[in-house]
Parts: sequence; C-alpha cells; structure tokens
Amino acid sequence: MIVVMEEKATEEQISHVIDRLTRLGFDIHRSTGVTRTILGAVGNRLVDTRELELMDAVAEVVRISTPYKLSSKAFKPEGFEISMGDLQIGGPSVIIMAGPCAVESRDQVDTIAGLVKENGAKILRGGAFKPRTSPYSFQGLGEEGLRYLREAADHHRMYVISEVMEISQIPMMLEYVDILQVGARNMQNYNLLRELGKQPKPVMLKRGPAATIEETLLSTEYILSGGNHNVMICERGIRTFETSLRYTLDISAIPVINKLSYLPVIADPSHGTGRRDKVPPMARAAVAAGADGLILEVHHDPDSALCDGPQALLPDQFARLMVELRGIVAAMGRTI
Amino acid sequence: MIVVMEEKATEEQISHVIDRLTRLGFDIHRSTGVTRTILGAVGNRLVDTRELELMDAVAEVVRISTPYKLSSKAFKPEGFEISMGDLQIGGPSVIIMAGPCAVESRDQVDTIAGLVKENGAKILRGGAFKPRTSPYSFQGLGEEGLRYLREAADHHRMYVISEVMEISQIPMMLEYVDILQVGARNMQNYNLLRELGKQPKPVMLKRGPAATIEETLLSTEYILSGGNHNVMICERGIRTFETSLRYTLDISAIPVINKLSYLPVIADPSHGTGRRDKVPPMARAAVAAGADGLILEVHHDPDSALCDGPQALLPDQFARLMVELRGIVAAMGRTI
Amino acid sequence: MIVVMEEKATEEQISHVIDRLTRLGFDIHRSTGVTRTILGAVGNRLVDTRELELMDAVAEVVRISTPYKLSSKAFKPEGFEISMGDLQIGGPSVIIMAGPCAVESRDQVDTIAGLVKENGAKILRGGAFKPRTSPYSFQGLGEEGLRYLREAADHHRMYVISEVMEISQIPMMLEYVDILQVGARNMQNYNLLRELGKQPKPVMLKRGPAATIEETLLSTEYILSGGNHNVMICERGIRTFETSLRYTLDISAIPVINKLSYLPVIADPSHGTGRRDKVPPMARAAVAAGADGLILEVHHDPDSALCDGPQALLPDQFARLMVELRGIVAAMGRTI
Amino acid sequence: MIVVMEEKATEEQISHVIDRLTRLGFDIHRSTGVTRTILGAVGNRLVDTRELELMDAVAEVVRISTPYKLSSKAFKPEGFEISMGDLQIGGPSVIIMAGPCAVESRDQVDTIAGLVKENGAKILRGGAFKPRTSPYSFQGLGEEGLRYLREAADHHRMYVISEVMEISQIPMMLEYVDILQVGARNMQNYNLLRELGKQPKPVMLKRGPAATIEETLLSTEYILSGGNHNVMICERGIRTFETSLRYTLDISAIPVINKLSYLPVIADPSHGTGRRDKVPPMARAAVAAGADGLILEVHHDPDSALCDGPQALLPDQFARLMVELRGIVAAMGRTI
Repeated sequence: MIVVMEEKATEEQISHVIDRLTRLGFDIHRSTGVTRTILGAVGNRLVDTRELELMDAVAEVVRISTPYKLSSKAFKPEGFEISMGDLQIGGPSVIIMAGPCAVESRDQVDTIAGLVKENGAKILRGGAFKPRTSPYSFQGLGEEGLRYLREAADHHRMYVISEVMEISQIPMMLEYVDILQVGARNMQNYNLLRELGKQPKPVMLKRGPAATIEETLLSTEYILSGGNHNVMICERGIRTFETSLRYTLDISAIPVINKLSYLPVIADPSHGTGRRDKVPPMARAAVAAGADGLILEVHHDPDSALCDGPQALLPDQFARLMVELRGIVAAMGRTI
Repeated sequence: MIVVMEEKATEEQISHVIDRLTRLGFDIHRSTGVTRTILGAVGNRLVDTRELELMDAVAEVVRISTPYKLSSKAFKPEGFEISMGDLQIGGPSVIIMAGPCAVESRDQVDTIAGLVKENGAKILRGGAFKPRTSPYSFQGLGEEGLRYLREAADHHRMYVISEVMEISQIPMMLEYVDILQVGARNMQNYNLLRELGKQPKPVMLKRGPAATIEETLLSTEYILSGGNHNVMICERGIRTFETSLRYTLDISAIPVINKLSYLPVIADPSHGTGRRDKVPPMARAAVAAGADGLILEVHHDPDSALCDGPQALLPDQFARLMVELRGIVAAMGRTI
Repeated sequence: MIVVMEEKATEEQISHVIDRLTRLGFDIHRSTGVTRTILGAVGNRLVDTRELELMDAVAEVVRISTPYKLSSKAFKPEGFEISMGDLQIGGPSVIIMAGPCAVESRDQVDTIAGLVKENGAKILRGGAFKPRTSPYSFQGLGEEGLRYLREAADHHRMYVISEVMEISQIPMMLEYVDILQVGARNMQNYNLLRELGKQPKPVMLKRGPAATIEETLLSTEYILSGGNHNVMICERGIRTFETSLRYTLDISAIPVINKLSYLPVIADPSHGTGRRDKVPPMARAAVAAGADGLILEVHHDPDSALCDGPQALLPDQFARLMVELRGIVAAMGRTI
Repeated sequence: MIVVMEEKATEEQISHVIDRLTRLGFDIHRSTGVTRTILGAVGNRLVDTRELELMDAVAEVVRISTPYKLSSKAFKPEGFEISMGDLQIGGPSVIIMAGPCAVESRDQVDTIAGLVKENGAKILRGGAFKPRTSPYSFQGLGEEGLRYLREAADHHRMYVISEVMEISQIPMMLEYVDILQVGARNMQNYNLLRELGKQPKPVMLKRGPAATIEETLLSTEYILSGGNHNVMICERGIRTFETSLRYTLDISAIPVINKLSYLPVIADPSHGTGRRDKVPPMARAAVAAGADGLILEVHHDPDSALCDGPQALLPDQFARLMVELRGIVAAMGRTI
C-alpha cells in the first residue's frame, strides 16, 4: 500500500500516519521528495484504505497488490483446467452447458437433454428451485427435479449443473449434481461461498449485475481459500444505462478475467440478453472473445415453458448455433 | 402515442387531456375501460411526452411509433448496402478499416497502409485533426495529413476514412476522403449532421459513450433526412461502472441495431478497450456478433506513436487477427 | 397492455397475436389505424411481455398499468404513516435512526445510544450478524448483540432496528427488534420477503445497488401482499460509472418514490457514500429532497470500530448535523 | 507515478522499465521488497500510463499526483470567490440563476426576469442558440435574443448567463453576457475551452452526462491554464441505469468537488430531472449538499414555451421554492 501525502503535509502529520501504519503491522519505506512525501507500507494485513484516506494531509492511498490472491494468474502461472471425468473445463475444448430454465417434468428434461447432447452439449443445466417468480407461479420441482435431471443426464451420458440457493441444500444437491451453480444474487453470500469451498465439486459463480470484475474475483477467494480450486466464473450481464435488453452482457470481462486469473470463464447469453433472438450472436461473440464455455437455455416448446420461455432457444436455433460455434472455435485453434 | 389516465381520473380531467391533444393536432381514440380510460393519439406531430405526463390524472404516456423512421428496418425492408467503387458495406463481406490513430508523416502512413492492405484491410483510417490532446501535444497535421492519407490509399488501392470535426472542414475533407467519420463527441452536433446529409459521401457516425441505441439512431435521422442514405453506425464503447477498461464495448448493440435498422454497423475495439491486448478478442467478438466491419488502429512502431500508441495493434498482431477473423466470418457464411 | 403491430403486419399475423392474448385471458380492443394496428389487452394477468415481443410482426409491447399495485399511491390516496408506539414514520416528523455499524459490546452500544438519543435520534441501529467480512474478521455478536441493543434502547427509551438475514432468524429477532431491516443483497430474496409479510412489525427494505426504483417497489409487493403494510424503502446508493465514492446516493429516488408510492422513504448516507466527511452533506440533501428519515452510522471511537469505522460519524459531527437538519426540516414545515 | 512489478519479474524486465522511464524524463526510486519490486517515478511529464501497463512483468501503474493541478484545492488553499460587480460566487451567499430555457421575445424574457428577480434571483439565464431541436423546431433568436436578455437584465439589475456554442461566437457574446456557459456536449471541446481561458469573463462549465468528476476537473484546466480563474462547475445529471428521470442528478458530486477543488459548484436540477415536479426537491437537495448556486428554468407560460416547457418551474413554484431555500441555507450559515 502506498500513502501519498499532500504537498503541504507537516512533519507531525506524516509521523501520525507512520504511527498508524506501524500499529497496523506494516513496515514503512519513506520517500521524501521535493514536493511531497510518499510512504510505502509493506505487509500482508488487509486494511480498509478509507481509514488512511481520512487522516489529515493524506492525498491518496493506493493498494499495490491485488486483493485477490488465490484466483490471480500468478498463483497458477502454468494454467489450470477443471477436470471432471473425461471433461476438462478451461482447456482447449469449449464446453457447452444447455437445458431448460426449470426442470418441469421427467419427460421434458429428458427430451431436451437428448436434443442438446446430440448437438454437442456436454453438461445439462436445469433449475430445481425457482424462488424468483410470483407467489402464484411455478416454484420448481425441488429434489424431484434434481432426480429427473440426474436421470436424464445419465441416460444421455452428460454431466449436471444446477443452482444451489442456501447452505442447507448443499448435501442434498451433492447427491445429484456435478457442478454447483451460485446465482448472481448470492455472489456475495460469503457464508454460502465458504461452505462450497469445503466440498470438492466444481462451482460456477455468477457475477452480479452490479459487481465489478475485481469484486467477482474477490468472491471466488472465499471458495478457493477453503481448498476447492474447481471454480469457474460466469458472466451474465451487467446493469447499464442501455435498456434495449435486460442487461449488457459484458463480453470484455472475458479477456479481462483471462488476463488476471487462471479460472475458466463461462458466458450466459440467455440471461445476459433475455431474448431468444439475441442469444446466438452473443453466444458467438462470447466464444470468439475467449470464453471457455457457454450456458444456454433451450426448450423444445418455449411457448409452454413454465419459466423464461422467451429466452430459451428453439431446438433448430440451438443446432444452427452449434454449427457456427464449431467454425468459430476452429478459427481460434479450439474445439467443441 | 397512448395516454393512460389514472384510475380515479374525472371526466373533466380526461376532457382536458383530449383538448390538449386535439390542439396538438392529434386524432383521438378514446377507450373507456372498467378501471381506467386510455386515449390513443394518432398523428405525425413530434411531441414532448413530458408535457402530457405532467397533466392532472395522467398515469403514463407511451410513444407507440419509433421516433426514428428513416433509419428503421421498415424503411428499407429489402436490406441495404453502401456502395463505394468495388466495395459494399453492409453486404456479405465484412470490411476492415485500419491505420494509425494519427497521420504523423508521409512515410508512416504509407508504411502502415501497405501492411494493413496486405493483410486484407480495404479502407485506410488516420486522423488529421487531433484537438483532444493537451495544448503542448501533437495536434495533427491538418490538410497535409489528409493529403498523405490520400496518397497512401491511392498507392495501395484503398479507400480513406477520416474524422470531420466541424462544418467548415467539410468541403476540404471531401477532396481527400471517401468516408466522413463523426466522432462520439459530435454525435449530437445536429448542425454538423445536417450538413453531412447534404453531401453524398458515406458517413460513419460514432455512438457517444452515454448515448442509448435509440438516441444514436435518432442522430442518423439528421443525416438521412438530408437525402444521404450512405450512413453507418459505429459502436465504440459505453460508460459503465466497470472500470477495468476505459469503456465497455457494447457488443450487444450490434444485434440490437441489426434488428431495428438496415444501417451497417461497424465496431471500434481500439477505442472501445484502449489496450492493444484486448483488441483482438473484442474484434473477434464484434464480428461474431454480426458487425459489418471493424475500424482498428495499427502502428508499426507504437512506442513512438504520437497518439494512442497503447491501443495500436502491432503488425504481427494485426496479421494474426485477420487470419482468425477470416475463419470466424466463414463460419457465419461471410467473407472478408 | 398494448401491442403495437408493425406497419406491414398481415391480417394473419394480427390474428395470431389476438389468439395468444385471448388464450392468456385478456379482453382485446383492436384499433386499426391507417398505418398500423394497435391491440389493447385488458385483464389482470401478469404476463412476460417478451413472449409477445418475439411474435411475428409485433413492433412493441407496452405495459400500461404499473406492475406494482399494493405499493402505489392509488392504493392509499389518503397517505400513510407507520405507527410504532409514540412514533409515526412517514408523517410530518423526520425520523433519525442512528447507532454503530455493528454491536461490539454492551458498553459500546449503550454509550452510542445515549449520545445519539441526546441529539434527537429515536431509533437505535446496530448489526448483530456481519457475514460480509473476511473469514478472520469480526462476524457480529449474534443474539447476544441483539440483547445489548434492546437493553440500550430500553435504557434510553428508543426503538430498535436491525438486519434480518434469513428466514430462520425471524422469530428470534422479533423478540428484540422493532423494525426488521432487509439488506440490499436480500432485496430480491422473495422467500424472505414473503415471510416478513406474515408478521406485523415494520420492515425497512433497502434498494439494491443495481435495482431500479420500479424493481424496488415490486419487491415491497411481496411483503405487502402478506398483509403487512408497515413497509418503508431505504435508498442507499446505486452503482454508476462515477467511482469517487463507493456508490452514487440516488437522491432523486426520494421524490420519485414519493410521487409513485405512499411508502415512507429513508436514506442511508453512511453506506451511500462510505466516507464520514461526505455523510453530513448527503444527509442534509436527502432530508431536503423529502426523505422521511435517515439511518446513520455513529461511533464514539471509530478508529477502533470493528466494522466500517471510516463511514461512522464522530459524536460531535452527529450533533452538528442534527442542528443543521432541524433548520432544514423547519424550512419545509416538518420537525425532527 | 508508481510502477508495481509482478512478483516473478526478472532483473532484465525491471531494467527495461527503468530504461523506459528514464527516457521519458523521470527520476527513479527503486524499492526492492521481498516479494516484488516497486519503482517510484518522479517528474512532471504527463504520460499515458497504459504504455507502461503493457510492458512485460508490469503488474500495475499508479498515478500519484492528481492530473488536475490548477483546479485543485492545494492551488488556492485560502479559498476562492468569483467576483462580478457586487456579486460573489463561491462565498457565503448562494447564487440563484433563473430564466427561460430559450429567449423567445423581448416581452417574454422581461416578464420572466422581473418575476425571478423579485424572488431573489441575481443572474438571468436564457438560451439564444438552440441547435438541438429538430430541423423544423425553434432554433433560438441568436444575437437578437442576447440583446433582449441584456435589456431585461439591465432593466431588472441582474447579470446575464448564456451558452456559447463555438469559438466564433465568443466576441459577439462578450458584448451581451456576464457569464459564458459551456454546455455538457462541449465539455471536452478543448479548442473552445482554451479560447475561453484567454478572455476574463466567468465561465460555467457543465459536466457531461458520461464524464467523471476527475474528467470534469481536467476540462477546467484548459480554461485555467489560459489565465482565467473565474471558472465554476455545473452538475446537471449523469447517465445511469435508472431511467425514471432523464438523468440522475449526482448530488454527491457537490461535496466531492468541494473537497478536491476551490472552484464554485452550481447545480442544474431543471436539466438534471427534466420534470418540473422534481425540480424543487432536487434544488433543495443541491443547496443542502453545499452547492454555491443553482441554475433554474422558469417560465410564466410553460405550456406555450418554445423549448423544454415541462421542466420550467411555474412562477408560484419558483417563489415557494425560494422561500424554502432561504430557510435551508440559513440552517447552514449561508444566505441567498
């Protein structure tokens, strides 16, 4: 951390800051320039920089080390892949996760699993808990839904991803799913993240719509510090002034995270756009920008879907998209 | 326009609104429902909807026709291409515009033109007026710069795009350039736009960093209404809370504009990211999302560039990117 | 809801939309204009407008009734106050809630309660659960903290507000607190909101940093629909591109909500700015804009505070602010 | 400027950075820590930090001095007031600027001048050039409008503020106006700003809707460096995801600028909200937050106004607001 003093800082004010830093456990390197004094504070203590900013004659306080450590590129300079059976996430192969927004019935999820698998999806998605709808709407099938999901995945030789909403659900979910998804609203539910760090299955953490990339990486630290390194980040749209779509899918977050961290990045163009007709272009863009995977909503009969029908791809749209994606990843030396 | 009255609106309040609408030249269709009255106002007058929103007992006012007409898809349902010699913009071919941020010398621009042309760029970019730098910085070569640009383009059989900053520059610029670029800061300089509508050369209008897509389309109307239909829109990044890059390149604007309008869409990943290492992934993403072209900064010696060196691609980066782009557009049935 | 058809919509496409609306349970008023057809759909069913937007030849779909009903001004046109003993929130008196970020000890909270009460605060705030800190930081005193809070409030004849984080905490919290606060991260935790609608104590719902005003009002519906009308909304800052402070306290949300809803509005300048020196100006601004109350962090020794010390007002700052606030509310015909 | 090297930076990479900094004219202080090396670069050269960020093994580059110098508090620690006849802007008195959006006729502006003066406004506002309307709308009266403005101001003993749109207008405007306003769209028109630095009359610079506070302060440097220190900043709303009003008036910018700079801050709640009913609460809030003045649109007959009628206060609203404002500023030890 570097503390820049104001030009007119007195010796007393400077000492005051040095005292404070020393009490906080830092080693101090003082550099007295012609116009101003700069204090380098070296140490591992996490400090709320505002405490120092508010001290007299302090002009600015700058953190010099990234606050996220375990997720930073420096931690695994050799690169990283999540391994799951015969699947690697974060390697040369781009992974497609697809399925319905919500599991509605055994037949529905099996039908959809069949058609997405046939076109190249490796992981089956589907929600079992749907608390966000109105009190009178479909709330999800709960554990029954997870069972259908597992059965469909086994039937079509796929893996399963589904969202965990609270700590109490973790043990039950571990019986059915291969990847635990943390929704955008829980991105800073640190108790939940910490618990997920104590179990070994991969976790996909969704970025919140008002969360910076730095905050998202910080959230992954809660899982990583528990010892579980099988973490991937999912970009699913941020809130901006542009309202022609629900969110602005931040495609640039993909290369930014790829530079800062070794964690695989997945993109969710279904939630990121909210409209079926915008999903294929944004899916292609995410992959072209370097995403390690996509999570897509697909439904064979979206007009009757119990949840988010308008953002579900139709089967033939999905098939066409997969063909395009194969061409795009090939141009970048990857496969699907 | 539709005016929704509040549930408790009195007959007198409703009459008041009807009177106002009639005076404004609208035909009124009144629909009296069980709970509330709705007034449909039909007519071509442009009206500030706030005037009506502020009237007593008005709950909401909704414009029902898009305020942009000449740029909307309905105006040219058969599609549209800008033709310029042997080049079509907006057709199956994706057009690459490339060159230095600023024209620095005859040699510099000729060298760069040669190398971008060799790799597939058809249009040479370069700034001649650079008012945004500090008073002591390079201000651009002015008309001399345009001459060098034209010579280099002719030498390498390319077209020229350069930015016009004020009305007074138009006649002079028309002698040298093939496409007139309007910068983001002039996006709502309506006087300039109107003048550009009176001349026939293509215009590329850049979206402002705080402008919605709707506002951008509205700005094109000023050019289109003058009779010049050779207009393209350039997405170059919007301001959001995410500050890891200068701007957030709004890739989703590409499919959104493609749905609303027939005008070709170009993306500018150089300004949209501000950093060379982020340009290739975002260039690929823009093309994968359906952009009709890219405008890219390239410099053979960016460390010595007089303007925006950090966002200029190195020659070999550009060459590699062009190879990747060719693969991507092929996957979508297009060419470069 | 109004469905605007495209100009070139065929009769078949229009029938298709009418069929869909009819099946959804709406009554249809068709208005066939010279250039386009407009369908008014009357009914109480909540519908995802995207379903209609994606139909062929639909140009636009507009909801004409506010989706929030129970919180809208029309529902209680005569105004509304939350009554709690001798206190009314939402009436002529502006209510000050103050106290530490976190309850740290019996002494700490009693000391702070004494000094804020002396200066005019009526409600004591203090957090008992602090899950947001790092695993090694202070996590809050839990139920013990609530007990200290209650004792301090009783000692100084104040009311208590504290944050509830999950459904399971509700019964225990009801033993200690007078107002249940829902944090920004739980603003769309609908299960929690629904449970809070089933108990009678007032609830203060904090707006999320990426939530629109409309979404915030929609969230209150979950509490109101359970029969508990003692709801207030708290503005605590939104995420914008301006990063000089943590959040941008959206002062304009105060008059906007005051126009749309009868629910009292509280402002939180401590979280909304994150820095002690910015709290007094923003507290004054919020009250001047019409806030019904403020929630403020105050600490007698913020350098030693276990949580968010930099945003806690010092006792003398708080005292001075209260004097200024009294003058400001008097100018608007209110009291503190 | 401080350059933080990556943990694994080699000695060669570090030398490379030192070379570059030396060539750029900086003195280097090298600090070699246990885990990483930090380079302090001291000097006055302005440098694009991205050039260094892109070098090998550079983790981060941090500017340590504010890029704005002439506008910073340190430059005039004793405070600053703009003096204009018997008026001081930035002193204990809060200054009200009021008048119509556009000058429409001699009578109109004289009538409005009379009523705003009577209620305490000291400065008369009014636009003479209105390029932003559609080609068929009122474009402003031009020089004739400025003459009416001057006559009305003289008649009622007021000062005049009006917007200058281009360099060529400056000499003519100086004949009529006392304060030159720079609109948000011209905030980064550096040529215009530089010219305004060469004349002595006060300038009010409006912040752009996508401009950070730092960028706004940087823009003032262009005027200040010409020798004209009579500069004030106007907050008029930023673009955010909240669309219930046109812009989000960033009230917190007022105390932030007051801390960073000695320049007076004016707020424009008329443009910042776009709706008459929201102007009084936001005007009160701005003043309560410490604004040195307000600029307000007032019209005696807004329904017939040729420009922005919906955001003009009615005369009695303005009178009532002025009474409230007097009470508010009194509570803060100021006057109107």
